[in-house]
Amino acid sequence: MTSRRLRRAQRVVGILKLLVDRPGTVIPLATFAQRFDAAKSTISEDVAVIRESLEAFGLGRVETHFGAAGGVRYVPQIPPAETVGVITDLCRLLSSPERVLPGGFLYMTDIIFSPVWAAALGEIFATRFRETEPDYVLTVETKGIPMALMTARALGRPLVILRRDIRVTEGTAVHINYVSASTRRIQSMSLPRRALPVGARVVFIDDFMRGGGTARGMLDLMDEFDARVLGIGVLLETAEPGSKLVQDYTSLAVLERVDEAARLAEVAPSAWVRQLAAPAGS
Amino acid sequence: MTSRRLRRAQRVVGILKLLVDRPGTVIPLATFAQRFDAAKSTISEDVAVIRESLEAFGLGRVETHFGAAGGVRYVPQIPPAETVGVITDLCRLLSSPERVLPGGFLYMTDIIFSPVWAAALGEIFATRFRETEPDYVLTVETKGIPMALMTARALGRPLVILRRDIRVTEGTAVHINYVSASTRRIQSMSLPRRALPVGARVVFIDDFMRGGGTARGMLDLMDEFDARVLGIGVLLETAEPGSKLVQDYTSLAVLERVDEAARLAEVAPSAWVRQLAAPAGS
Repeated sequence: MTSRRLRRAQRVVGILKLLVDRPGTVIPLATFAQRFDAAKSTISEDVAVIRESLEAFGLGRVETHFGAAGGVRYVPQIPPAETVGVITDLCRLLSSPERVLPGGFLYMTDIIFSPVWAAALGEIFATRFRETEPDYVLTVETKGIPMALMTARALGRPLVILRRDIRVTEGTAVHINYVSASTRRIQSMSLPRRALPVGARVVFIDDFMRGGGTARGMLDLMDEFDARVLGIGVLLETAEPGSKLVQDYTSLAVLERVDEAARLAEVAPSAWVRQLAAPAGS
Repeated sequence: MTSRRLRRAQRVVGILKLLVDRPGTVIPLATFAQRFDAAKSTISEDVAVIRESLEAFGLGRVETHFGAAGGVRYVPQIPPAETVGVITDLCRLLSSPERVLPGGFLYMTDIIFSPVWAAALGEIFATRFRETEPDYVLTVETKGIPMALMTARALGRPLVILRRDIRVTEGTAVHINYVSASTRRIQSMSLPRRALPVGARVVFIDDFMRGGGTARGMLDLMDEFDARVLGIGVLLETAEPGSKLVQDYTSLAVLERVDEAARLAEVAPSAWVRQLAAPAGS
């Protein structure tokens, strides 16, 4: 291997690592030029190699931005076939009899708290909602947080977490009550005023939807902030009730049936995932 | 650029991306050989380029594991000087007058929920606790979750989250009460039996420590699981009280003083960070 060849591969390693460490963030070519002691034209060629390779391997996109605030940024993008594969694996895992809990609940904490699953699911949601151009990713504590954090990371946007109670440590907050669609119990959520500017564009990510009460409550709370909710993504929705309190949302999987006595759970890819799996034009 | 040179750089892009997407996970050379259609000896050379470059640029390590379960894995590793830089920036941000809240609290939600900060702090904690070889990373809801998730991700280990209440949806759980050292109020935390096997090795990550009551409660709860707590990491501790309810912990920053009337907050790097900044042998 010649010394020159080594240098290109070496720079490519350094540039790619810095790009993927900050998805969605524009990094000026000058930053790379300085750090790796090369001309901007050379860095441009390195970036071209990275762009072509990532796209060829289905590992994401690199975008070039021109102008004063110009530079390049890495954009995670999960190909449809990979999304279908990940969700099919997930459904198989979730349909295991050992996951059926007393009360007909399904144990999925190990999966949604796993950094590997959270990253994969977050990149799928980021791919789904990127074109809506959100300023913030929103979730409600607790189980949705890992997946929402990884969605926010993949989009290069901040995460905002709705709390179940009012925290004294966060200043003035807006607090709302709502009724859980399934249990009919009064729930509450709150958000500090300073956590979200008025008029923000947000996407909401959560782990589970039965009746849609939480998502409905989130919409009401967002009204108080004059926020625009551009998308709602949930990992798992229940087949029943078929009619939810919110209309537009994307789920990844559907809990078709859970039978506590028979220790049986049926989880299937959602309509959105099945449509990704369909051949184009079919 | 010859076609051959392009191929090496292209493979390096693909291999590095797959490695950094799964920190701490051993990936067999055969996986890369198949995906990038190259001999294992060629992949070995590619990996050598990646290893040397990452180490030269202070961007992490690549380890080779031999034997039947052999392969290579990426290990995030933050150099001491970078840790000092990150924490110095953090302390400057946290010392801003606008962060002082009624009651003498400090607003830091925007920072600890930021994916970029969470990733940087998680990699610092992973570097700090890697040699203890934990099986799990533990935190307690809510604010510590993003940072703990990124610590777990950097270590390639699952995250376990202690809840403030008992969830009906997670089966049999162990529940303990403890007294907050600062407020003297009764608090509780719980963990489902199935969330952590008996005898696990864990590190605990949290955002804030005043008296150490939460960390003490966590130790009591871990006793119920016969777990070995190998390390405790907190982002911010208060200077007062100087004596905490736990002895061995690593903080990154210290809240020296917060004066609500004067709108003044003083946050400084912790003793552990200052020791990293000191020249070797001094």
